[in-house]
Amino acid sequence: SEKMRVAVVEGDGIGREVIPAAVEVLDAFGLPIEKVPLELGYGKWEKCGVAIDDNDLDVLKSCDCVLFGAITTPADPNYKSVLLTIRKELDMYANIRPIKPLPGVTGVTGKSDFDFVIVRENTEGMYSSIEELHDDVAYTKRVVSRKGSERIAKSACRLAKERRNDLTIVHKSNVLKSDTLFLNVCRETARSEGVEYSDMLVDAMAYSLMTYPERYDVVVTTNLFGDILSDMSAALIGSLGLAPSANIGDMYAFFEPVHGSGPDIAGKGIANPIAAILSMKMMLEWMGYQREAELVEEAVGKSILEKITTPDLGGTASTLEVGRAIADYV
Amino acid sequence: SEKMRVAVVEGDGIGREVIPAAVEVLDAFGLPIEKVPLELGYGKWEKCGVAIDDNDLDVLKSCDCVLFGAITTPADPNYKSVLLTIRKELDMYANIRPIKPLPGVTGVTGKSDFDFVIVRENTEGMYSSIEELHDDVAYTKRVVSRKGSERIAKSACRLAKERRNDLTIVHKSNVLKSDTLFLNVCRETARSEGVEYSDMLVDAMAYSLMTYPERYDVVVTTNLFGDILSDMSAALIGSLGLAPSANIGDMYAFFEPVHGSGPDIAGKGIANPIAAILSMKMMLEWMGYQREAELVEEAVGKSILEKITTPDLGGTASTLEVGRAIADYV
Ligand SMILES: CC(C)[C@H](C(=O)O)[C@@H](O)C(=O)O
Ligand SMILES: CC(C)[C@H](C(=O)O)[C@@H](O)C(=O)O
Repeated sequence: SEKMRVAVVEGDGIGREVIPAAVEVLDAFGLPIEKVPLELGYGKWEKCGVAIDDNDLDVLKSCDCVLFGAITTPADPNYKSVLLTIRKELDMYANIRPIKPLPGVTGVTGKSDFDFVIVRENTEGMYSSIEELHDDVAYTKRVVSRKGSERIAKSACRLAKERRNDLTIVHKSNVLKSDTLFLNVCRETARSEGVEYSDMLVDAMAYSLMTYPERYDVVVTTNLFGDILSDMSAALIGSLGLAPSANIGDMYAFFEPVHGSGPDIAGKGIANPIAAILSMKMMLEWMGYQREAELVEEAVGKSILEKITTPDLGGTASTLEVGRAIADYV
Repeated sequence: SEKMRVAVVEGDGIGREVIPAAVEVLDAFGLPIEKVPLELGYGKWEKCGVAIDDNDLDVLKSCDCVLFGAITTPADPNYKSVLLTIRKELDMYANIRPIKPLPGVTGVTGKSDFDFVIVRENTEGMYSSIEELHDDVAYTKRVVSRKGSERIAKSACRLAKERRNDLTIVHKSNVLKSDTLFLNVCRETARSEGVEYSDMLVDAMAYSLMTYPERYDVVVTTNLFGDILSDMSAALIGSLGLAPSANIGDMYAFFEPVHGSGPDIAGKGIANPIAAILSMKMMLEWMGYQREAELVEEAVGKSILEKITTPDLGGTASTLEVGRAIADYV
């Protein structure tokens, strides 16, 4: 059978450090995977005046999936977000963000008895880019479509059935009538898929996730709410440097740590590669390499218990040393 | 001088329990205040088919301010939110939500070395009510105006100058160009008011507030972000039952606990009245009764240390018993 093609985009800042570490771990398996390196982002923008071009999109589309680091977004209003461009162009509508504590690391609440996944709609909502900018007023159009809601609801239900069959639909339908559509479609989908469900207002959910994270299994929500709740939830597992994510469509998939390019710590070799390594683990799962994915998760746990960690977890190892240790364990 | 007129709206559910408790404390001071009781909300809607009418608005406008409990919002799409109607009709554009730990109560993170205030724009953003509902797609228009941003930025700066002179502007301008206007106006206002400022993306802020709450003093943001961040932050102080708020305009003010009508615990006498009592304390401050406001805060602390608390804080006292104890202390 043909080799899987993976576009490897380090991006900017600590992306250039954590992706090589994740690639060390991937390479340790010797799987039939072809890596296609691609330069995108702020670095490219400074050199060429564009952060991503049509040719880059063609390269991405010629691959099966993407392993992505992080990209620096300058304040320049002409700069088009690479991340948002790729998510849209490759129509990767499901942003999957697991929140699961790692052994030996506790988050801000000290709890570790939870394991939930945020399923974030990734193509519409407040990210429509339909905006009107005037001198004295600016508008953004929030778009919620039946089709968009249906497909994300289905993704969430599929995941719920592989897990504890418990879906929480998060919305703000008491204020946004556009969320009534989202809520209704999610409810209908859950019913027809036989998934247990309930719903929560986004404000109440922010409180509840921090207070009772153990109550949740699969959380489905619109784009910007998912953005906020997933960063917030990273506080529950101790660090943004530990939170992986997958962007999944019908044709392509794209794996990236939840953290950004960390300009303040870039170049020092102290960035935690675990979020990138666990994103790579999600890529292995998506490719069907279940066993290898489990090995990665175990090896990450082992590296922490053996205290081979970057400074954010109290250790003295460098980004690449952590990557090598995990590569050795798998 | 004329008496201040305060509209007292218990509303629904636990609003009917916590407001009487707050009124006990208010009455203990014997101040020249005239209370004007007003029935609004779901209860009225069931009886009369409207939750609030023009006559009610006239009564509210004839008062100087409002002490408000909570209102149940039914799923019925014809139901118009009382809270949002009042906020808009009385043009109370600044929603002030202090997050300050009470003595002897710790929140989910165990920290108590913080004290910040969320200043939430209260009249526009996602709460524009400009919506288009079709069968297969729904839109909501997010509105950010220069005027709206300016006046909330000024409120926040005024507060910052009374506090630690440190403003954090929270936005999502990397995705919402409408937030560039908000961000720029807040920056300009802070500069011209001589207030130290920085800015944060809302997703990063959700993480940072949970992880480093001690870093923040005054946080200014748009309507829905403020809604989410303030409920989330209530987890830092241990309970939504402890979080007060004030809605302030140029003409009127409106004081309400952040929590809702708690239909699950209503009628049992176990609702914590502290959020309502601290909201009443904010009302005293607004009226210029600084000393009385301080006494309320001290008395609340004392009631907790003496363990006269409702079950959510581990005690066995009823809502009204807590109110009476605090009224005795002031
Ligand atoms: C960088 C930004 C555009 C992006 C988003 O808002 O989706 C990021 O915060 C994320 O969560 O992946
Ligand atoms: C009840 C609801 C309309 C309201 C809001 O969203 O503003 C509430 O959540 C609040 O924070 O006061």
